[in-house]
Amino acid sequence: MMEQSNEETLLSNERLDDLLTHQLHIIQSREVFSFSMDAVLLARFAGVPPRGKVLDLCTGNGVIPLLLSTRTKAAITGVEIQPRLADMARRSVKWNRLEEQIHIHEGDLRLYIEHGGYGSFDAITVNPPYMPVGIGDRNENEHMANARHELNGTLDEIVAACAKLVRTGGRVSMVHRPSRLIEITQTLRKWKLEPKRIRFVHPHAKAEANMVLIEAVRDGKPDVKLLAPLIVYNEERNYNEEIMEIYYGNHQPETRMEPT
Amino acid sequence: MMEQSNEETLLSNERLDDLLTHQLHIIQSREVFSFSMDAVLLARFAGVPPRGKVLDLCTGNGVIPLLLSTRTKAAITGVEIQPRLADMARRSVKWNRLEEQIHIHEGDLRLYIEHGGYGSFDAITVNPPYMPVGIGDRNENEHMANARHELNGTLDEIVAACAKLVRTGGRVSMVHRPSRLIEITQTLRKWKLEPKRIRFVHPHAKAEANMVLIEAVRDGKPDVKLLAPLIVYNEERNYNEEIMEIYYGNHQPETRMEPT
Repeated sequence: MMEQSNEETLLSNERLDDLLTHQLHIIQSREVFSFSMDAVLLARFAGVPPRGKVLDLCTGNGVIPLLLSTRTKAAITGVEIQPRLADMARRSVKWNRLEEQIHIHEGDLRLYIEHGGYGSFDAITVNPPYMPVGIGDRNENEHMANARHELNGTLDEIVAACAKLVRTGGRVSMVHRPSRLIEITQTLRKWKLEPKRIRFVHPHAKAEANMVLIEAVRDGKPDVKLLAPLIVYNEERNYNEEIMEIYYGNHQPETRMEPT
Repeated sequence: MMEQSNEETLLSNERLDDLLTHQLHIIQSREVFSFSMDAVLLARFAGVPPRGKVLDLCTGNGVIPLLLSTRTKAAITGVEIQPRLADMARRSVKWNRLEEQIHIHEGDLRLYIEHGGYGSFDAITVNPPYMPVGIGDRNENEHMANARHELNGTLDEIVAACAKLVRTGGRVSMVHRPSRLIEITQTLRKWKLEPKRIRFVHPHAKAEANMVLIEAVRDGKPDVKLLAPLIVYNEERNYNEEIMEIYYGNHQPETRMEPT
């Protein structure tokens, strides 16, 4: 691997973080965007085909496409509406020499159907903003506000986009807040995306869930599996074994999706 | 307490089991009906008011009213369509000298609104049959078939009955199979019962959930809590501490409901 200069790659206030797997690195910025555990768990949870076409909406700095590239040879597209973040994502892809596999599209996910086409993806991942507009603290910069609030697409609009872009039998995987579970499952069903696997993430064994991972299948049959809970911290307040494996391990993905 | 004779109380093939709490006993029969862990967990999970009126639909041999009587001074009505089970439940109530608090109504829950009246209960519990008609093994006796299959009311009919019988702000608590989660939450919402607390029960920490406890509030605001998972067996294949407490302990109920 040729040496690359950080100075050429990074803008001011940016840093290059080690993704700790497959020698991947990612450009982050405290002021603009840093990925969270939510994205890492989604990238492991999502059913992706070994080949084909995968789409990541609300891709931010591209962390999910980068992590998915270790699990599949599929062509991966990340869609991001904010030019600053799309640019960060593109530079990360380039730094990791993944331009052949990962394409970053700058634009509105609600309009992406014009580029992507109906039913053209085998799997879609999305880590959307968790809060409807008007709820919670909006006293933050534009980038952070966009990541947290549904400023560029409501849950319904995001799910609608997924439903149009994924093929019949294809999978849509999402991470979200458990408090919105009922709305999420209802919206998925409304758009013919049938929830098939749900996993709750709890900070510790006796705590309420603070994250939910959901996988739906386009035109799937109703029958959902509630997977074993994912408990983040053990009683000694260290990461549990499974979290350690997801972050630092080199394990097989927990699900595979066969091409049809 | 006066001595009672088992011979007067029990029919053939019946036995008198110790409920292991508050000196309660219950009449059971291997051929007709024995309660399961599902009912015990629901009786602990359900939000019940300290006073007022509580209803238990699909009451079977009355296990839930008996267990709820240790948590509330409310008047409790159990509704059971099968005469044989309603009779067992009545005899258990009598054996425990709870005739003042618990009334067993023999009849169809779909018609119970004529007796109960609209919005007249503060809380309702229901441990309904888990399987739609036509699914699973029906090669069983009439009593077992009724307990397992929706022969006397579909999920929609049962939820509709709850929605009519409970007051605004009152709670409906249900135990069911996780595979039907989406249908359950959608049906509850359809009938203005907003899911507010959900708890999954897993046989062990790394297993899928095989039971779900759901509490909904009539005309409640959308916002659901996903409680810590309830894990039945520990790594040594013994009951976990919490299950031991629920079965054998004399603990405070995990939720209380204040009268409004």
